[in-house]
Amino acid sequence: MGITRFGISLEDGLLKNFDRLLKGKGYPSRSEAIRDLIREELVKKQWEEGTREAVASITLVYDHHTRELADTLTDLQHQSHKMILSSMHVHLDAHNCLEVIILKGHPKDLQAVSDRLIGTRGVKHGKLTITTTGKGLD
Amino acid sequence: MGITRFGISLEDGLLKNFDRLLKGKGYPSRSEAIRDLIREELVKKQWEEGTREAVASITLVYDHHTRELADTLTDLQHQSHKMILSSMHVHLDAHNCLEVIILKGHPKDLQAVSDRLIGTRGVKHGKLTITTTGKGLD
Amino acid sequence: MGITRFGISLEDGLLKNFDRLLKGKGYPSRSEAIRDLIREELVKKQWEEGTREAVASITLVYDHHTRELADTLTDLQHQSHKMILSSMHVHLDAHNCLEVIILKGHPKDLQAVSDRLIGTRGVKHGKLTITTTGKGLD
Amino acid sequence: MGITRFGISLEDGLLKNFDRLLKGKGYPSRSEAIRDLIREELVKKQWEEGTREAVASITLVYDHHTRELADTLTDLQHQSHKMILSSMHVHLDAHNCLEVIILKGHPKDLQAVSDRLIGTRGVKHGKLTITTTGKGLD
Repeated sequence: MGITRFGISLEDGLLKNFDRLLKGKGYPSRSEAIRDLIREELVKKQWEEGTREAVASITLVYDHHTRELADTLTDLQHQSHKMILSSMHVHLDAHNCLEVIILKGHPKDLQAVSDRLIGTRGVKHGKLTITTTGKGLD
Repeated sequence: MGITRFGISLEDGLLKNFDRLLKGKGYPSRSEAIRDLIREELVKKQWEEGTREAVASITLVYDHHTRELADTLTDLQHQSHKMILSSMHVHLDAHNCLEVIILKGHPKDLQAVSDRLIGTRGVKHGKLTITTTGKGLD
Repeated sequence: MGITRFGISLEDGLLKNFDRLLKGKGYPSRSEAIRDLIREELVKKQWEEGTREAVASITLVYDHHTRELADTLTDLQHQSHKMILSSMHVHLDAHNCLEVIILKGHPKDLQAVSDRLIGTRGVKHGKLTITTTGKGLD
Repeated sequence: MGITRFGISLEDGLLKNFDRLLKGKGYPSRSEAIRDLIREELVKKQWEEGTREAVASITLVYDHHTRELADTLTDLQHQSHKMILSSMHVHLDAHNCLEVIILKGHPKDLQAVSDRLIGTRGVKHGKLTITTTGKGLD
């Protein structure tokens, strides 16, 4: 698809503060910073509406010594295998593991898998991060 | 201060989805919607940096039958009276009250008052909402 | 209604850190701190489900010199008068005003009023804070 | 470390709603659900204080056809190689890629790497998810 250029107007004080913010974050241009703000809004909106396929990552930190935890996590992932695209495992130290699981599916289903995984005994911290298939954002 | 007009470029698909979003929210123009996204970022940033005065509202819901709660809330507000600009009280039903308190001060101090108020026994739900003195956003 | 007492078990390290956190926030007891964490979860859940009446506050900061802004805000509030319980106005400085509006209704309707108000030209910052009627949290 | 058991008291209505919530999320016990609420608070608190090492994941969705994007992302990751523990790449479709990067370091440094990566032109959506080394949460 093409690109459209249009003008926007901003109060001088606001623009000065915005330029400082985007310089601090390393943005190459105002357009790119504004695109990011807009995309973030759209990703949240699409997740809330729940009608489109979304992508999400689930980040889990757990102690792999917890009896049966690894098995339970593996079982839960197998039950949801159609949604799971990939997963990665990092050994943080002798006890703690971090696992990131990437899923694609409807927001409600992704939320349900996430609730189950995070609720498993032995998982110290879990977080669902919603993102996008990338469609409709370009 | 003046207003500066400049051009930004957006991919067509992204622009279409953005226009739909801002129409749904009743924005009069793309500029106004983009201003809001930028201001929201700046308000969060200024709060995190903690170097400027900020404004915040604290929303509390509580049962006014809880013994001594009203007194405690009043005491806490008096101790912080320099920060408190105003407050409002609404009777939700025979038991439940809602109180909103507006404060101005440094983020750390506002956070501390909020923690105290929300932590008071009998407060069912409390929430700190950060906003701005309005300076530097125009 | 009555109060139920039950036991929970916590790892020692976690308990130590939790006790430090709640001391810092001024909580009178572990029970009260845990109640607050639970109520916060329930308020978010009830808002997402959207089936119960909720209460919310909308915090707006705007420049009252903006032509017709005050009129527009008043009109919008009148159109939603059945939902609006109360409102409060604070003069932050010669230019900036803060207004807090308390509403009761279904989450979708409250969200729509909030979108309209925040999207109005001249509103520098607006925020919807969800809370509760207090029912079902005791 | 050991485990401590202690009693907490909850209003009956609140407990009923909490039990319904945790059943819906598949929690095996009230203790586990309460542990999760507490750990989530501690992870946020530790991140804000910024004094301890933290762990975070950055989730990026981008179009791999964007000229030089992949190179820039790789360069940025190499510059931060001491913080990066691992990364994973998923092909969402013919155009869109998802990349998750796991980092360990001080919150400020992790935030800076995240800002750079998310601000890179061509990244459609990026999100920093904070979590924990697992220490102090057990």
